[in-house]
Amino acid sequence: MTVASPAAVPALDYVFHPRSIAIAGISSKENRRGGSFASALQDIGFRGPIFLVHPTATAIRGLKCYPSLLDVPDDVDYVISSVPARAVPGLLEDCIKKNVKVLHMYTAGFTETGDAARAKMEQTIVARAREAGIRLIGPNCMGLYVPSSRLAMMGDQLPEPGPVAMISQSGVNAGEFVRNALPRGIRCSKVISFGNGSDLKAADFFDYAADDSETEVICSYLEGIQEGPRLAQAIRKAAAVKPVAILKAGRTEAGSRAANSHTASLAGSLAIFDGLCKQAGALRVESMDELVDMAVTFRFVTRLAGPNIVVVGGGGGASVLAADDLAAAGLKLPPLLPETQEALARVTHEAGTSVRNPIDTTSLWQEGGFESTLTPCATATNVDAVLYHTSFGGNWPGSNDMHARMINETNILKRLRDETGKPIVVAIRQAMNASGLAQSQEFIDLCSKNEIATYPTIARAGRALARLLAWQRMHD
Amino acid sequence: MTVASPAAVPALDYVFHPRSIAIAGISSKENRRGGSFASALQDIGFRGPIFLVHPTATAIRGLKCYPSLLDVPDDVDYVISSVPARAVPGLLEDCIKKNVKVLHMYTAGFTETGDAARAKMEQTIVARAREAGIRLIGPNCMGLYVPSSRLAMMGDQLPEPGPVAMISQSGVNAGEFVRNALPRGIRCSKVISFGNGSDLKAADFFDYAADDSETEVICSYLEGIQEGPRLAQAIRKAAAVKPVAILKAGRTEAGSRAANSHTASLAGSLAIFDGLCKQAGALRVESMDELVDMAVTFRFVTRLAGPNIVVVGGGGGASVLAADDLAAAGLKLPPLLPETQEALARVTHEAGTSVRNPIDTTSLWQEGGFESTLTPCATATNVDAVLYHTSFGGNWPGSNDMHARMINETNILKRLRDETGKPIVVAIRQAMNASGLAQSQEFIDLCSKNEIATYPTIARAGRALARLLAWQRMHD
Repeated sequence: MTVASPAAVPALDYVFHPRSIAIAGISSKENRRGGSFASALQDIGFRGPIFLVHPTATAIRGLKCYPSLLDVPDDVDYVISSVPARAVPGLLEDCIKKNVKVLHMYTAGFTETGDAARAKMEQTIVARAREAGIRLIGPNCMGLYVPSSRLAMMGDQLPEPGPVAMISQSGVNAGEFVRNALPRGIRCSKVISFGNGSDLKAADFFDYAADDSETEVICSYLEGIQEGPRLAQAIRKAAAVKPVAILKAGRTEAGSRAANSHTASLAGSLAIFDGLCKQAGALRVESMDELVDMAVTFRFVTRLAGPNIVVVGGGGGASVLAADDLAAAGLKLPPLLPETQEALARVTHEAGTSVRNPIDTTSLWQEGGFESTLTPCATATNVDAVLYHTSFGGNWPGSNDMHARMINETNILKRLRDETGKPIVVAIRQAMNASGLAQSQEFIDLCSKNEIATYPTIARAGRALARLLAWQRMHD
Repeated sequence: MTVASPAAVPALDYVFHPRSIAIAGISSKENRRGGSFASALQDIGFRGPIFLVHPTATAIRGLKCYPSLLDVPDDVDYVISSVPARAVPGLLEDCIKKNVKVLHMYTAGFTETGDAARAKMEQTIVARAREAGIRLIGPNCMGLYVPSSRLAMMGDQLPEPGPVAMISQSGVNAGEFVRNALPRGIRCSKVISFGNGSDLKAADFFDYAADDSETEVICSYLEGIQEGPRLAQAIRKAAAVKPVAILKAGRTEAGSRAANSHTASLAGSLAIFDGLCKQAGALRVESMDELVDMAVTFRFVTRLAGPNIVVVGGGGGASVLAADDLAAAGLKLPPLLPETQEALARVTHEAGTSVRNPIDTTSLWQEGGFESTLTPCATATNVDAVLYHTSFGGNWPGSNDMHARMINETNILKRLRDETGKPIVVAIRQAMNASGLAQSQEFIDLCSKNEIATYPTIARAGRALARLLAWQRMHD
């Protein structure tokens, strides 16, 4: 019997797996300083002890308080600092005495203020922590969301893990990524908000994510380029083994100024960062929406053989705009082959747009019409992918049993995807009313469970597929 | 005593004010052929009689049926044709005998099929209708939504009128425009889906909207250019007196082909259409989202003195992306004047981003903090407009009484807008959870009632303001 050799554990892995946490600087008032971390950790069900440090309170949120970190009777792996900036050096000394491994500094008010004395204080803290072997996350950040460790940085974060990592300089943007990606079937391995990145930097996290066995796709929001050559090397290492998509702020002069105010970041030239990404094989995206779309695309589409898309759905005007949007993104809508048109003509009693690409047909809603319309599209030899678009809340024939229809549609889409090996993606257009909104989410959930990519508009679906092709070209 | 001369009534006004309607080709089955028109008219509360034409049924949906149009005992102003294409000539003869004024042909299957015989049939129908003095809407379209006449083309359309007209070649896109604009405070005067435009064309509707006293802003979705010189003249006439925004499909070769399949449209060159818009002073937009954004902007922002925007909100990463997005759209984020910074410094205990543009501050949520942060921004002499961004569903301090906070904020925004004469617009970012979604809509409603423009993202707000400036330059 052979024993499988265990996967190598990345050096920084302990940072993401604390056994106990202390929160310093918590307020006894609801959700003020540090309180939201305590409730986020309670909500997600952190498995180890959570110790609170408060000068006078005996308990907050049912958690016992200690006057100082040194009074905590057990080992503490991970400390969240919510104390004012001037109190951090003292807290760090306590961490050293207490043999703490990681200090997450939610505390802000350092280099990003533009004040030289405060920048100096940040440097002194980093030097002292390094000397003592403590790793710092931040300052000026939300820290970690790690579902498998039941670590959360905000309320309402799911304990269910998944394969997407998010390395973010901004906590708000990290939270927005998670919230927007979640309803589209994306679950996360490690989400990191690292703020000023005074000790642990983007390079460290890319390096870690490249090695992390729980991570298959890496997304990132960066404001600055710290230690350029090391960052370039880490992105190159990650992008060689996993898809990497990066939203880089500071694209404009105004954005660079804002990045500097926010996380003391030097944004650097966008052209240089673009070159870095191209060399590394990482995809640079332009917006948070696109970052989420690429997480969905890398996760569920994975590969596209070429640019030829057939678009199927109901709605003439939507189809016309779809053709424009896809063509503008660089995709092609090939004319349907005679045999495809003949197969479609057997399904529909309509002519014209029902047998041309984009296919606009009401036959989709007839008994058996969905399967007999989608099948010739997916199996056509001149088609690389199918884009099905739909919307909910209209008062169509058969809309009474929408649930059964959705299950039937996802089963057919999944089967065709598996049989043909071609991506089949779904754009779920704006719902027509409140019940349509709920049905939209139900259909997105069904698709996501079957690993079918969904997008909120046809244009975004087209752009994501085009970006996937561009990413593939970098790696071919 | 002088008697005010009544406003001239545009020649086509009767088309939008039928006193009675007949629907021919209705199915006795739920929501099939024509049935959705009957229920849409019932839902919106059409005030006149609705007659149904059905060969055998005596009543459908509580409405009396007649074997033929000629059997209807009263006058009929407006007929909706849902009969098959081959039955339209016979129905038209009945309309002529019955002295009908307008025939809306929902019926499709004419020129757009690409079949020469069917194209010929459409031409014959138009010629016969013109000879008899009947105006045609369509074929291949959803017809009219006119709240003040209680005419609807789809279910769930509000009877509340407003000043925005939508001239659309596609019914789906007309419906999407209405649904997307509605929750952002937009109400409509006339919404027109005219399909193939075989008799009444875009030019007729632009001409009408220019003269229509109920219309202040004109939006349009066009697939083809019919009778180019006449269309150009009508757009020029309309754009000279009211803001006009047009989404033109067929931007790409694939889109042009799709437009031809959909409404038999010849899309023409985008460059030529662009030139037409520029000469006319109409704004060409790139997507349905942008069309809705411009309806909101023309309606609630109306005028912007210059490109200098101050951005205020909470969230560092969101602020940095805001700066990028606005700068990329062509707007400016001027550094704040010393006196503005001093005024802000009196409010905030934070430094850095709290006194720089974009302003990222938590002081907004303190007692009195919203007013004392927004006031110096709006009154600053180097600022042309304020963009306030926010999101809902977070567990912030004071979020328990969100309703009172929203009312306070809208009151302050409205007062500052009125006192300074500067636009104050609001971007409501993605909600953090379901209750945040409901709060977002409540805040959008409050803003809309106060004629404050709202946008779903900062990027879209920035792009809309930049397009407004571009539109103003065409008219200055």
